[in-house]
Amino acid sequence: MPEAAFAQTARATIGDSEFDRDTAVTRRAPGVYDTELSAGWIIINAVNGGYLLAVLGRALADALPHGDPFSVSAHYLTASRPGPAVVRTDVVRAGRSLSTGTASLFQYDDEGQEIERIRVLASYGDLDALADDVRTTAEPPSLPPMDQCFGPQDAPAPIPGSSAIADRLMLKLDPATLGWALGAPSGKGEMRSWFGLADGRDADPLSLLLAVDALPPTAFEIGLSGWVPTVELTVHVRCRPAPGPLRVSITTRNLAGGFLEEDAEVWDSADRLVAQSRQLASVRLG
Amino acid sequence: MPEAAFAQTARATIGDSEFDRDTAVTRRAPGVYDTELSAGWIIINAVNGGYLLAVLGRALADALPHGDPFSVSAHYLTASRPGPAVVRTDVVRAGRSLSTGTASLFQYDDEGQEIERIRVLASYGDLDALADDVRTTAEPPSLPPMDQCFGPQDAPAPIPGSSAIADRLMLKLDPATLGWALGAPSGKGEMRSWFGLADGRDADPLSLLLAVDALPPTAFEIGLSGWVPTVELTVHVRCRPAPGPLRVSITTRNLAGGFLEEDAEVWDSADRLVAQSRQLASVRLG
Repeated sequence: MPEAAFAQTARATIGDSEFDRDTAVTRRAPGVYDTELSAGWIIINAVNGGYLLAVLGRALADALPHGDPFSVSAHYLTASRPGPAVVRTDVVRAGRSLSTGTASLFQYDDEGQEIERIRVLASYGDLDALADDVRTTAEPPSLPPMDQCFGPQDAPAPIPGSSAIADRLMLKLDPATLGWALGAPSGKGEMRSWFGLADGRDADPLSLLLAVDALPPTAFEIGLSGWVPTVELTVHVRCRPAPGPLRVSITTRNLAGGFLEEDAEVWDSADRLVAQSRQLASVRLG
Repeated sequence: MPEAAFAQTARATIGDSEFDRDTAVTRRAPGVYDTELSAGWIIINAVNGGYLLAVLGRALADALPHGDPFSVSAHYLTASRPGPAVVRTDVVRAGRSLSTGTASLFQYDDEGQEIERIRVLASYGDLDALADDVRTTAEPPSLPPMDQCFGPQDAPAPIPGSSAIADRLMLKLDPATLGWALGAPSGKGEMRSWFGLADGRDADPLSLLLAVDALPPTAFEIGLSGWVPTVELTVHVRCRPAPGPLRVSITTRNLAGGFLEEDAEVWDSADRLVAQSRQLASVRLG
């Protein structure tokens, strides 16, 4: 098979994909990692917060004795930019089934001084060591088949929020949550989408950290536009995702005092709730 | 008025109450606070996680330039015990409208070595500086009037989970979520209650950190018993609570792999959603 044809049909794999390369970290010293933030994950004018969380999550997976993020809490301090960055980690506690650590992402100002971008506190474990019992009343989001959903490339006009990151994601949004793209936001703070990586790489716990913060913000359907910067984002990874596309739903119920919460659920192709998140974001009312 | 009669009718106030005394911290050095964990907030055999969070939250309110917790993420490391403890805080970033800091609660082992109990990462602001806009689809929990709800003191037999803390709280649980107390758990992961402090002290942002983790665990209504230790708990305080009783609802949808999430909402007497939280807890299936 000619190499070009192979490249077209081959799917990227976990460990060998754009997402893996763009979230790679190189250990400079014990617990200290160099990385390069890619311009490929920009949304509006900001480096996507889920992508940044995956970079920090990868550093912690190396620094801690356990490899899977169970619960990751991130406080966003200043806006990250594409370019070099350093992640400094610290082990808080190494337990038998769970380890806890901190991670900080730093970049550099014009004088070369470090500026902290994000501080993370996280507990890691081994998802494969969990019992496979499930008792749930949660149900996957109801989404039309993928071919009846719409991606950024289907938009008649540029969609606010689509930019570099749109080329790296497979997003197929439920038309019921796309009123904002036609100038008629529903007023309901809901967004639902099929989700994958554009190169076909399957999901893993690190890419779930991206998935919870990769849809257009619910604020668009509430009738707000512009940037909705994250103050805090906590993700719980509940299960290792099965291969295949994910379904992501995000919901906002309460906008008050210039802040809103955005709750995300991520479901895998085996109908398992694989991740839950909540973020507190600040909004500017127009 | 005789002093005894006054004591009976006087309500404790914010700043002068059992909760305030039991969460008090004394600055030993910049950012370092001594405290004494009270045995009065034990539930089953553990010091209540919400009470502990309020102690940490009070230290951060002193250490940071802003006084109100906006978003507090706590990872619980080891079980706290009544007795002396020290809180070590660190300012991560002091911004104009938000400040971020860390806090750690330490106790001592038999050799006097410090053991870390809880690590917190939190962003603080000024709730009174927020605009009073509200756009919400959230609705307060539907609860019967307080005199049709039941507290620990109404139980025909000792309720699992009631112990010292029960004397310090005004809990009036919705009978619809009390099946577990009669040996017939509903199977639904829901608990709803009126909530206050027993001495009548009104709620403030610090006591909301207690309120989100003070009800009997949803696990009881799922049919599980025993301790459900918190791994991670994040609280968002959305609004300064009005005087009067609070309503708290907690919900679990997904128990899987020995972990469950517990989402709490706290509503004030003015029908404002004043706090939201989610915790990840581990369960032992019987």
